[in-house]
Amino acid sequence: MDYQARIKQAFLDSGIAFTDEELKSIDYADFGLNRLETEGLNLIVYVNNDTYCAKEMALLPGQTCPEHRHPRRGVNQEIEGKRETFRCRKGKVYLYVEGEENTKSIKSQIPEGQEAYYTVRHEIELNPGEQFTIEPNTLHWFQAGEEGAIISEFSTPSDDPSDIFTNPNVKRVTE
Amino acid sequence: MDYQARIKQAFLDSGIAFTDEELKSIDYADFGLNRLETEGLNLIVYVNNDTYCAKEMALLPGQTCPEHRHPRRGVNQEIEGKRETFRCRKGKVYLYVEGEENTKSIKSQIPEGQEAYYTVRHEIELNPGEQFTIEPNTLHWFQAGEEGAIISEFSTPSDDPSDIFTNPNVKRVTE
Repeated sequence: MDYQARIKQAFLDSGIAFTDEELKSIDYADFGLNRLETEGLNLIVYVNNDTYCAKEMALLPGQTCPEHRHPRRGVNQEIEGKRETFRCRKGKVYLYVEGEENTKSIKSQIPEGQEAYYTVRHEIELNPGEQFTIEPNTLHWFQAGEEGAIISEFSTPSDDPSDIFTNPNVKRVTE
Repeated sequence: MDYQARIKQAFLDSGIAFTDEELKSIDYADFGLNRLETEGLNLIVYVNNDTYCAKEMALLPGQTCPEHRHPRRGVNQEIEGKRETFRCRKGKVYLYVEGEENTKSIKSQIPEGQEAYYTVRHEIELNPGEQFTIEPNTLHWFQAGEEGAIISEFSTPSDDPSDIFTNPNVKRVTE
């Protein structure tokens, strides 16, 4: 099965109901890195207005969203950075945020050769029904466990172009 | 099965993962009307901070959330009213909002004797995967179909005491 078909299947297998239109509009984000299976993220955006945003995200086993933060934004930096709550719906996700290292060896495998771009090590394991809120401008990255993961995100508005990735090669293109 | 056990079961049957703590903290809102089975709403709040809110709501078959709106709030009315997106996850919900009557006879049954408190008639039917956004200060009420409903709500912050219900007998008490 090709990549997009596998992602669609992961969303369908989640038990969450989607419209056909939503399944056709999945955002397969490769961050301009061209190695979707290792560093990628797949999103269905439910709503993104000027006050809040909600989406469903799917990750293949071991797939990783590269480290980034959501800084202040707007012409005069008048808008607070994005705050977001991740809620694991299925599978398992390892989330890493700024803060004290709380494990000797993290459970995720950093994508080979990319160690310089994964700098935060405070590990939070999220199983179905568990959630964590990431405050604005906090570096974070996450990786699905061996069964993949479905994660809901509730947040202030999404504005991908303002995100700052640790890897300078990342290009987050959005239509 | 008593009311609370039935609601818990509805949440469990939804296929959505909840923590034990969440299932213990379900808000069984009766709006001070003492007829939960007809006018009531059951909520698990995932997050409610000063920027956004997300919850899961369960309704028994035919159960109705009374008509209300979310006006401007704050000491000097400086905060916009709550805007909210309802997304049906399971079952069916009939949502009524301000606007042109778009059906000769609505599909819901207004709770007996309460007709004066259900004034808006613009009907929106939401099936699993379908959603609708209610703008601030817009009168709305909703009723589950014959299988009940599970609905996600994504919104600006919830602040129940500021809600204005059409029925003056409603008391929305929150801890």
